Amino acid sequence: MEIITSKDNELYKKIKKLKVKKYREEYQLFLAEGWKFLQFPVQPELIITKNEIADEIGAMIEKFDCRKVSLSDKLFSEITSQENSQGVILVYRIENSTVDNLSDNIVVLNGVSDPGNLGTIIRVLDAAGFKDLLLTKGSVDCYNEKVVRASMGSIFNLNISYIDERDMIDILRERGYRIVVTALEADSISYTKLQLREKNAFIFGNEGNGVERDIIDKADEKIIIPIYGTAESLNVAMATGIIMYSVRERLEIES
Amino acid sequence: MEIITSKDNELYKKIKKLKVKKYREEYQLFLAEGWKFLQFPVQPELIITKNEIADEIGAMIEKFDCRKVSLSDKLFSEITSQENSQGVILVYRIENSTVDNLSDNIVVLNGVSDPGNLGTIIRVLDAAGFKDLLLTKGSVDCYNEKVVRASMGSIFNLNISYIDERDMIDILRERGYRIVVTALEADSISYTKLQLREKNAFIFGNEGNGVERDIIDKADEKIIIPIYGTAESLNVAMATGIIMYSVRERLEIES
Repeated sequence: MEIITSKDNELYKKIKKLKVKKYREEYQLFLAEGWKFLQFPVQPELIITKNEIADEIGAMIEKFDCRKVSLSDKLFSEITSQENSQGVILVYRIENSTVDNLSDNIVVLNGVSDPGNLGTIIRVLDAAGFKDLLLTKGSVDCYNEKVVRASMGSIFNLNISYIDERDMIDILRERGYRIVVTALEADSISYTKLQLREKNAFIFGNEGNGVERDIIDKADEKIIIPIYGTAESLNVAMATGIIMYSVRERLEIES
Repeated sequence: MEIITSKDNELYKKIKKLKVKKYREEYQLFLAEGWKFLQFPVQPELIITKNEIADEIGAMIEKFDCRKVSLSDKLFSEITSQENSQGVILVYRIENSTVDNLSDNIVVLNGVSDPGNLGTIIRVLDAAGFKDLLLTKGSVDCYNEKVVRASMGSIFNLNISYIDERDMIDILRERGYRIVVTALEADSISYTKLQLREKNAFIFGNEGNGVERDIIDKADEKIIIPIYGTAESLNVAMATGIIMYSVRERLEIES
């Protein structure tokens, strides 16, 4: 294994840049931290270990046919994003995503900004068997380290694309999607009362502001999760999980 | 408003102790941080502000008939639990909880340890209209500041009690509850296939270890959330939200 001890090392400088969205886009690479990533059947481009655990981890990473480097503790501490790091960070290539072959039921996030929420949503959509996720521009970067971590590996299982919200509705409608937004409007109905069509696009909004007004106004259906107690609202990740699992169960019954 | 500038002030020392579970239990008080708590219709025992915003916040806290103190920035920084504090912390009395008058559908958490998860669960149970939550001893303290914050005020709306897991099943059964555990067992069924009885206790487990073996073995029903994609599992807060909202919707249809 190569050992890097200088902060001027070219590879090290490149790794460090991957903490910034701009460079993730330029290099088409992203970071994923933690031992659990070693268990996913996805080929990394590079495995980075902290020097002091390089021996311990050596056998575990042998199976990976990729470049491996070990960093001095000081250098490692500058790229880890965790307080109690497990001492391993993987670098993966960003797979080309596409809006060309979307499945019949898709989710769109309109400006979700919290990385933990996005990661949690990716995880629950994967669990519920949905394949395609669209994010409007201005949403948090799905290759942000916190998103990757919260997704618990589901980041590898979804086709995630960014889309301009200005022409999104037209594009989806052209392709035959019924546009369903989650929004608290006078004519919103409970998600349990929604009639599913052959192709449905479910739109969830920003944590504070919800779905943009323009998009709400153009939607075919507006749905809410009824609040039965005195809580004011639900977190967007929880709302997505509740609605999309309910959709999945209905698709299963109908199929 | 009283101004506290010395760390030897008796009230200040007491406030600081409330960061520790032992003292919360001794004093039967807990801390809640952030402006949003000012909007809940619950009477605090004490309102603490950071000196520099005391004027700004004065009008907002006028309506509260309780003791109010202002702390120097240094003293405040030692009790805030947030990096970007809004400068206001409320102290509330812990309401006596009871297992004497439990409603027909209750949730039990068996060793949930992450405060964010517990807070999220409290919020979603309140939203779904459930009133009673039991926690086995060894679960995280529900008056932990992170739990209180994540509950978004729903901590005030639930009757939360701690129970010894050793006699829990017997107590619940005596009272007529059907014991439903979430566990991945050979004879587990999908939560959507569960027959609801008149009284049901839904048990969710620890983040890493799930529900304890003893409790699983004594349960009347074992349920799972089916995974349709390639995700390994769901977070316990998400699982609780999905199952309990599904239960709520079925109770609504049947009623």
